[in-house]
Amino acid sequence: MPQTRLDIARIRAAQQVIDPIFRNTPLYRCEALEPHLGCAVSIKLETANPVRSFKGRGSELVASQLADTGSRALVCASAGNLGQALGWSGRGRGLDVTVVASRFAPAVKLDRIRAMGAQLELVDGDHEVARERAAAIARYDGIRLVEDSLDIETCEGAATIGLELVDTVPSFDTVLIALGGGAMATGVGHVVKALAPGTEVICVQPLGAPAMTHSWHQRRVVSTDSTNTIADGVAGRHPIPAVLDDLLLVADDAVLVQEKSIVAGIRLLLDHAGLVVEPSAALGIAAILEDPDRFAGRHIVTIVCGSNVDMDAYHRWVGTSR
Amino acid sequence: MPQTRLDIARIRAAQQVIDPIFRNTPLYRCEALEPHLGCAVSIKLETANPVRSFKGRGSELVASQLADTGSRALVCASAGNLGQALGWSGRGRGLDVTVVASRFAPAVKLDRIRAMGAQLELVDGDHEVARERAAAIARYDGIRLVEDSLDIETCEGAATIGLELVDTVPSFDTVLIALGGGAMATGVGHVVKALAPGTEVICVQPLGAPAMTHSWHQRRVVSTDSTNTIADGVAGRHPIPAVLDDLLLVADDAVLVQEKSIVAGIRLLLDHAGLVVEPSAALGIAAILEDPDRFAGRHIVTIVCGSNVDMDAYHRWVGTSR
Repeated sequence: MPQTRLDIARIRAAQQVIDPIFRNTPLYRCEALEPHLGCAVSIKLETANPVRSFKGRGSELVASQLADTGSRALVCASAGNLGQALGWSGRGRGLDVTVVASRFAPAVKLDRIRAMGAQLELVDGDHEVARERAAAIARYDGIRLVEDSLDIETCEGAATIGLELVDTVPSFDTVLIALGGGAMATGVGHVVKALAPGTEVICVQPLGAPAMTHSWHQRRVVSTDSTNTIADGVAGRHPIPAVLDDLLLVADDAVLVQEKSIVAGIRLLLDHAGLVVEPSAALGIAAILEDPDRFAGRHIVTIVCGSNVDMDAYHRWVGTSR
Repeated sequence: MPQTRLDIARIRAAQQVIDPIFRNTPLYRCEALEPHLGCAVSIKLETANPVRSFKGRGSELVASQLADTGSRALVCASAGNLGQALGWSGRGRGLDVTVVASRFAPAVKLDRIRAMGAQLELVDGDHEVARERAAAIARYDGIRLVEDSLDIETCEGAATIGLELVDTVPSFDTVLIALGGGAMATGVGHVVKALAPGTEVICVQPLGAPAMTHSWHQRRVVSTDSTNTIADGVAGRHPIPAVLDDLLLVADDAVLVQEKSIVAGIRLLLDHAGLVVEPSAALGIAAILEDPDRFAGRHIVTIVCGSNVDMDAYHRWVGTSR
């Protein structure tokens, strides 16, 4: 059992708290992809829910615990998906949700955050600037700051995906997980290493936003000055030390992929799986495309973690125009 | 309880026979669609499984019952989705599956039928010609003929969708169901009328393939000479009398929609729900677009029944080219 901050008993208990609409998501073999990838591929689909990403699992934990304490307000920084999810979970419980986001986040994500009834504040910088601003708001207003990947609920919410993966028979050889702040990677990784230790856990990050991957390889926090990737959902620059510590215990590897491979993954998922995905959700397929020999003949599962994508950009990526 | 050929106890029992990969599919409110439709809309998503349509529910029943009898072979006519599903279900049970399809069926559906290991025979005519040929093969070879919508397993398999719908709280005002041969409409309709009789059941068919809808309105079988629709999955010409009898007992209405509304529905589902669908799966959205006053303020659920679509045609429909 890896000695991370996460706890299997709490993760099992979390399943009872999270709205069923986010749980027991589709998990299925996608044979039409396989001739293009050279391995068996299963999809864990986290997009068929009201917020179109896996973040509802964590937001449900956060919001239900806050509501239980009698608190009524929270603030978070979000690349777009956590904000939608906290908006959804908070609205159902009468919470005041404030989301701080980069004004460069996809407009569709910002629109959906507003539509959920959350207060949206935009900052001129990137996600790291939004994090600083959210922390300042929390201090000033004396309300709960939700920090993605640092707050254990965000990791243990995502970890419930892991419980759904390890129940599968036969087990997978490898799980490919998009790596950003690390909530999904440490969450799913913890469960897999605890309950299916023979399954390999590989994190995938864009070459254009490599901070956590560099940190994992060097076993110390490595920040970057900027990011340059279409995968907005995983574009952080400052890894959180406690999250890195956990990731070091549960990941077997962390790899970086090129932008063109992410785009190729987006296209493959559209053409052969009929799935619309945001770039972060194509990182696993991109990793297979870049190193097919590594995965040849194995059974891979990749988590399709979100589908909140700007449609104009999407059409450019899939080679179409309108 | 409507006096159709279907039986609630058998449908409940069917849930135990159908592979879980086809059951408990996502069902969620899709608020981003609602400003465009003027009503509350929930999606029942039947595409996130190995055959990308709801047909696996019925094929599992057919194949398991056949395997139980010791028979080893079956033949069916298919517009493309039933053939894939029977291929999948038959392969897992060691059955020989022969599928007869129109050579005008989407190539992607025909390719997937072959990929499932089924024997594919193409006929020069449309789906009705394929039905005749499948019947001839069954007589000649003495093997089981699976007739979509006539064989009760195909209806009761689809009916398990209905069980998943009526469990929802609060209940829906209206369920919109694509109408082709009638398996899904009679199946889901039977369960809804039996267990949630206050919910309206509306069937939707293309104006270019209106035989069953005309039959429902005239309360007698009305055939057509031809079909002209992009919704290949529902393009029949000769309604089956026993299926019409059932449909008369469970449908509150049957409406026809124009091709341009189907295309608009496909685009809405892509742009605002992130869903790739085949034309048949957009019929419900098309019905709302054509008569928004009828649905205003109501809570509608529509079954997104399949996503096996020719991608070149799809890009034409969504206004893109490549």
